Amino acid sequence: MFNNILIIGCGLIGSSILRGSINKKISKNIYVVEKSKKNVSIIKKIDKKIKFLKNINHKVSNMDLIILSTHMSEYYGIFKKLRRHLSSKNLITDTGSTKRNIENLIHKNQKLKKIFIPSHPIAGSEVSGPEFGNKNLFKDKWCIILKSKNISKKNVKKIEKFWRKLGSKIVFMNSVDHDKIFSITSHLPHLIAYNLVKTAIDFQKINKTNIIKYSAGGLRDFSRTASSNETMWRDIFFKNKDNIIYSINIFIKNLNNFKRLIKNQNNKSILKILKNSKKVRKQIIELKQDVSKPNFGRDS
Amino acid sequence: MFNNILIIGCGLIGSSILRGSINKKISKNIYVVEKSKKNVSIIKKIDKKIKFLKNINHKVSNMDLIILSTHMSEYYGIFKKLRRHLSSKNLITDTGSTKRNIENLIHKNQKLKKIFIPSHPIAGSEVSGPEFGNKNLFKDKWCIILKSKNISKKNVKKIEKFWRKLGSKIVFMNSVDHDKIFSITSHLPHLIAYNLVKTAIDFQKINKTNIIKYSAGGLRDFSRTASSNETMWRDIFFKNKDNIIYSINIFIKNLNNFKRLIKNQNNKSILKILKNSKKVRKQIIELKQDVSKPNFGRDS
Repeated sequence: MFNNILIIGCGLIGSSILRGSINKKISKNIYVVEKSKKNVSIIKKIDKKIKFLKNINHKVSNMDLIILSTHMSEYYGIFKKLRRHLSSKNLITDTGSTKRNIENLIHKNQKLKKIFIPSHPIAGSEVSGPEFGNKNLFKDKWCIILKSKNISKKNVKKIEKFWRKLGSKIVFMNSVDHDKIFSITSHLPHLIAYNLVKTAIDFQKINKTNIIKYSAGGLRDFSRTASSNETMWRDIFFKNKDNIIYSINIFIKNLNNFKRLIKNQNNKSILKILKNSKKVRKQIIELKQDVSKPNFGRDS
Repeated sequence: MFNNILIIGCGLIGSSILRGSINKKISKNIYVVEKSKKNVSIIKKIDKKIKFLKNINHKVSNMDLIILSTHMSEYYGIFKKLRRHLSSKNLITDTGSTKRNIENLIHKNQKLKKIFIPSHPIAGSEVSGPEFGNKNLFKDKWCIILKSKNISKKNVKKIEKFWRKLGSKIVFMNSVDHDKIFSITSHLPHLIAYNLVKTAIDFQKINKTNIIKYSAGGLRDFSRTASSNETMWRDIFFKNKDNIIYSINIFIKNLNNFKRLIKNQNNKSILKILKNSKKVRKQIIELKQDVSKPNFGRDS
């Protein structure tokens, strides 16, 4: 499919792209830029043919596809370095979790505008690092590709084909819709998980009692989500600030309403909310976004 | 251990006690009161020796141990029926998720006060019904037993032994501490999960767009928790109202603070909160309340 691809940033996502690309023979040569020595030594063990670039240098101009999968806070610095070496041959995509910020960065540069097609594979986990990478990470998962007028159809097709080869299902979206939708389905849930764990920590301090050991009744599952990579999530919270603040506000409104319903023991309204939740769960399973297998805790 | 035990209410928890009791030969005879015909036909298949009582009747006076595992909203009606048939032979426990309300009910009756030792096995799931019951449901899980001055040590020992036989680890607590602790580790997480799903439903209505299909990034995991039995959770929210409202309030305070930190892009404070969360996760795994195996979604 390609002669040369370059993966910049090779953590969980980057190394999964790497493994998938090797597995599906997506490119003759695969280059990696990875600043962590520990990560490099892990990646080296995946395949002997992987080539490492120490820096973003003149070799970049020869890459058919460049995939950015670093933390989003590093994009600005990388763009600055990339700019000098870009050629008309290059096609670029990324895997960042918010998209308006990236589009804004791209639009500041005439070269980038024509060759950068942002994407977002919905395939994260609470773990990070190349040791957790998996060639099938993207299999049957959605990958969002950003629509743009500046890009040739041919190039969009290439990016689409690339993700399909890795197993993704493709959806095209604009950055505004993307950032709105994921503020609800992903950013708010993570933010809530972090704050729920914080609330438990606060409670422990005030009451001087160990409650963590009783976390099996619910807190446990949130703590998994709340152990996700902090740099990645700080970046998401900052880059999608406006949508997230809006989401927090409607969530707090719902919480205050629910509080009132409990206070007044409003049986009918409470049951309606709880039952509607169940319907959404059913949809999620029907849409194959989760399995119905129940969770009884650590032993099963 | 016992000659006769009676399980009133035989859903997920009741039928797991039933299965565990048969497995560990806890009682010569096991009686069940279960009002759902569907459930009765499922339970009959577990073991031929199970005896069914159609009602709470005079036979109750002959039971060594009575275990209440119905929804808590049914306790009042059951207590009224039980009262007539109680004997000094009886010992009673329950499995309800809140405990102050139950203690209050018990203390209204002189007979119950001396023979009722409330307990709470921390072993729920989002599924309900006897079809999901499991003889090992309580294995290595905490079971909270309520302290009381009104009960003989001998009887407390019996209840303790009963739960240990089923595999539980025992903790003694008073009802006030119990309801406070579980308002944070269990009731608030469930309430939040329900309200997060509601927020997603609201968003779908306003934006006329299907976002549920993108739930893999976080919402999915909350939707599992939010598909738990609605009657059970309504009861918990109503019975532990004061603690839960207090928990909601400190959670909202944390959310508002977090919102401010995002607005001001307060890097240091945000990273501190996210990192502290990770430490709690580590504790939860060390305390064997969860496994460290990462979650990559439905395929793994």
